[in-house]
Amino acid sequence: MLDWARRYDRATLASDLVATLIVTIMLIPQSLAYALLAGLPPEVGLYASVAPLLLYAIFGTSRVLAVGPVAVVSLMTAAAIGQHAAAGTPAYWAVAITLAFLSGAMLLLMGFLRLGFLANFLSHPVISGFISASGLLIAASQLKTLMGVKAEGHNFIELVHALMLQAPNIHGLTQAVGLLAAAFLFWVRQGLKPLFVKLDLKAWLADGLAKAGPVAAIAVTAGLAWALEWQAQGLKLVGSVPQGLPPLTLPLWDLALWQALAVPALLISVVGFVESVSVGQTLAAKRRQRIEPDQELVALGASNLSAAFTGGFPVTGGFARSVVNFDAGAQTPAAGVYTALGIMLAALFLTPALYYLPQATLAATIIVAVLSLVDLGMLKRTWVYSKTDFIALLATLLMTLARGVEVGLVVGVAVSLALFLYRTSRPHMAEVGLVPGTQHFRNVLRHQVGTSPRLVSLRIDGSLYFANARVLEDWVNDVVAEHPQAQHIVLQCSAVNDIDGSALESLEAIDRRLCDSGIAFHLSEVKGPVMDRLKDTHFLRDLSGRVFLSHYQAVHELAPEIGQAV
Amino acid sequence: MLDWARRYDRATLASDLVATLIVTIMLIPQSLAYALLAGLPPEVGLYASVAPLLLYAIFGTSRVLAVGPVAVVSLMTAAAIGQHAAAGTPAYWAVAITLAFLSGAMLLLMGFLRLGFLANFLSHPVISGFISASGLLIAASQLKTLMGVKAEGHNFIELVHALMLQAPNIHGLTQAVGLLAAAFLFWVRQGLKPLFVKLDLKAWLADGLAKAGPVAAIAVTAGLAWALEWQAQGLKLVGSVPQGLPPLTLPLWDLALWQALAVPALLISVVGFVESVSVGQTLAAKRRQRIEPDQELVALGASNLSAAFTGGFPVTGGFARSVVNFDAGAQTPAAGVYTALGIMLAALFLTPALYYLPQATLAATIIVAVLSLVDLGMLKRTWVYSKTDFIALLATLLMTLARGVEVGLVVGVAVSLALFLYRTSRPHMAEVGLVPGTQHFRNVLRHQVGTSPRLVSLRIDGSLYFANARVLEDWVNDVVAEHPQAQHIVLQCSAVNDIDGSALESLEAIDRRLCDSGIAFHLSEVKGPVMDRLKDTHFLRDLSGRVFLSHYQAVHELAPEIGQAV
Repeated sequence: MLDWARRYDRATLASDLVATLIVTIMLIPQSLAYALLAGLPPEVGLYASVAPLLLYAIFGTSRVLAVGPVAVVSLMTAAAIGQHAAAGTPAYWAVAITLAFLSGAMLLLMGFLRLGFLANFLSHPVISGFISASGLLIAASQLKTLMGVKAEGHNFIELVHALMLQAPNIHGLTQAVGLLAAAFLFWVRQGLKPLFVKLDLKAWLADGLAKAGPVAAIAVTAGLAWALEWQAQGLKLVGSVPQGLPPLTLPLWDLALWQALAVPALLISVVGFVESVSVGQTLAAKRRQRIEPDQELVALGASNLSAAFTGGFPVTGGFARSVVNFDAGAQTPAAGVYTALGIMLAALFLTPALYYLPQATLAATIIVAVLSLVDLGMLKRTWVYSKTDFIALLATLLMTLARGVEVGLVVGVAVSLALFLYRTSRPHMAEVGLVPGTQHFRNVLRHQVGTSPRLVSLRIDGSLYFANARVLEDWVNDVVAEHPQAQHIVLQCSAVNDIDGSALESLEAIDRRLCDSGIAFHLSEVKGPVMDRLKDTHFLRDLSGRVFLSHYQAVHELAPEIGQAV
Repeated sequence: MLDWARRYDRATLASDLVATLIVTIMLIPQSLAYALLAGLPPEVGLYASVAPLLLYAIFGTSRVLAVGPVAVVSLMTAAAIGQHAAAGTPAYWAVAITLAFLSGAMLLLMGFLRLGFLANFLSHPVISGFISASGLLIAASQLKTLMGVKAEGHNFIELVHALMLQAPNIHGLTQAVGLLAAAFLFWVRQGLKPLFVKLDLKAWLADGLAKAGPVAAIAVTAGLAWALEWQAQGLKLVGSVPQGLPPLTLPLWDLALWQALAVPALLISVVGFVESVSVGQTLAAKRRQRIEPDQELVALGASNLSAAFTGGFPVTGGFARSVVNFDAGAQTPAAGVYTALGIMLAALFLTPALYYLPQATLAATIIVAVLSLVDLGMLKRTWVYSKTDFIALLATLLMTLARGVEVGLVVGVAVSLALFLYRTSRPHMAEVGLVPGTQHFRNVLRHQVGTSPRLVSLRIDGSLYFANARVLEDWVNDVVAEHPQAQHIVLQCSAVNDIDGSALESLEAIDRRLCDSGIAFHLSEVKGPVMDRLKDTHFLRDLSGRVFLSHYQAVHELAPEIGQAV
């Protein structure tokens, strides 16, 4: 914070204030909508957008990240609380507050322990599969509000099935309002700005008007609902939202509940952190700024704790709101402070104006927002480059749709790690030979290289550890069988970044067996850190051959022994 | 089987028959003891030693492996069944049969799917920690029989605590018999054979007599128990063991029970398989034979299924019994067939002779056998070579003692994999320079090498994947900051065995950022399999620099551009 506060001047203030106005207008309907998605009263969305913004401004390292309720975390919140209380009850809200508290505490702890690196274990395919599937889940869950029916389900298939059963009960007016609002919002995203530009408006004005599109949808449908008395015809409105500042609240001190919420809270923390950091990094890179993952953990932890103490629910840095902030020209986190003040004012004075807002309009807002997260083209792109990435992506996508966000995420991480382990357990291995005119050795199957039947050069492309130690043993056995004249085997270790205890025993076994067959076993290009550990071992003391600095040197020095030039 | 059956002659028959006699005598008390350890009637141990031996002789690839009840698997069986039935009841036996059936089915399935490689993921530290802890657990569980008291516990601490509470109730005669038997058996292991050799007996006779030691302990204590009517004084005997062939039995067809037993059965299968394969490999290597892991899965699966259908419980290839078989000179699996016949005859005719056998003697037999599995010196040896191996070993050891065999094994595997992933997530990275007079590049911090401020050579020692992609990005950023004059950065990829989709995006980001700073980004020594996948990507098409076959070539060809000789 000290970093930017010192250099704050009038020009920065002006651009921050403009950003504030736009973002505040954007955030109000979004916050209401995500609170409803999480199964909470709409005003809770406003409460969750005030204190967290302030705390992030103090502790965060991104200058434009906007913290508050976001789609995926709201969905995960609903999934986590659903097992403990009925949506809409005060008990449900209390559990949401407790969840924010636990998530905040975990994030803070992870930050203090500098565990930010753990987020690296969520691979891109897992994240994109999870986000796409969550988008589909959220869209499906909002369709019932759009159609004016009741339909519940714990996964995508159940949701779609319940919706299809409800097809005869669709409330026509609700559906009409919802579909028109959705169509308008899609068009705003795609076509409105080019239209304004064509109409010769200034670019910044066209941009600003296009961004105000969602607000127009809300104002128009709310106005119509009031003028035409749609509530009497069965259209569901947001209704009376209490006016006032965010309340002071405390989490439930219930150890059994904490235990039950521990895993969901951890998953929400990790997903929230990953989403927030990727958004932050993307935007920071555009301005050549940097963000500090471990500090971000602390900032998000503080934000979530503050949400818990001011009647909110789990929050994180959202893509949509941060991009708006960035595009609107926010220069410093002070923009976040102003936005928090703006939303506080809205919570104090504007909530009566929200009475006539149709819930179907909010559902349309959510659907349009989350469908932009769904990127099924990713499946094809991933398939082309990497089949293992594709499997991880598909597993995450399908499990999230079929079994919900928590199972989907855990399975995705497990699958991607298992695939990585599987690949490292069968490393690529090659017999190599000298590229003529150089001192460089390459695979005999891919390059025209020089070899000798008495001196066999091998290369293993992977660190040696317990899962692949036996594979190396088997391979050396096979190589010996194929080269009956072999007197020396040199293993090029340029790709061996580590040798664990299990692999060391395998190397000893290989050496013993080769020695029994009258073959000397040599190593070359053993890296410094590996050599440091090998040098005091029995293996190296008893090794039948030698350790050479480079593979060329090995072949060069062994050449006289086999009576053959290289 | 066809392999050895064709070459079977009289000399082989003779050595097989001698092996049979010794092994049969050894196996009878061992089988009774392990059945009692598993909480089953003693005769079940005999039943589990007949059919499995036959089936393994047909399907197995090791020539000397002896299949039957073993210590660790018996302990795991007791832990698994304990939750479903009370020890000693017919229901308990039925669950044991079902467990053998499930384990057999899983092993067969894994064999057909060629999943033998999965056993490689049990690292040496995890196996040795698990075996040592199991040995201690078994010894503690047998102490109560040795002391003639009742003491139950689910883990080592509970067991030791319960035993200490029972100290005042120790049955003097039982403890005297047990301790003397144990002392005698320890002495047989250590001192008997040298003594016989000193007495000028032939080596083979000394060997045979030393091996008969356990039988002597059994015969003497049983004889004394009969002559001195110890049962009347409160010493527990094995009692009446039903005479007869192994019964035909069926597993329980209870899906809920199957689900509950699935995880224990899987763990028993994996541990049994690993124990069996390591024993088989150790012995096969001594005679330059090979065993085939996937075929071993099938053989052990068939053995366990046969145990389920003949009143047995989970079995595997045991170390003690196989070594006896090997030492006794068994040449072919036919020795296993003869041993099976011998035990069948024992079950038919010898069981009345077991009536007077004190249970304390059997407990002493088990304790002496399992304490030889406990190798706490391993802790120190592992610490010296590898701290991560040490952590995995210690975690497995402590968790197995504190929470039992199943939790211990799962935690051990999880910890060893997590440590491997952690290490690969922060690969060693080095700036490299040319070793004078060669074409070989090494770490600037470890070697006297030539470098240039305008051409920076980097090497990363690890495959690039999602968990370390960001680390590389950060490192390249730091390197650029340290080398303000840099015009070219060449990344030597000799240790990069794979680049996944997440890492590819990081490489693109690195290239873009370097390009913006006016630095060209090159790769060298990219391996064939990695290049195959890179060549159709945007990254390679848009790369600001080039890809060189060798790092020397890269430096050589770029030298003119930076106006500097290499």
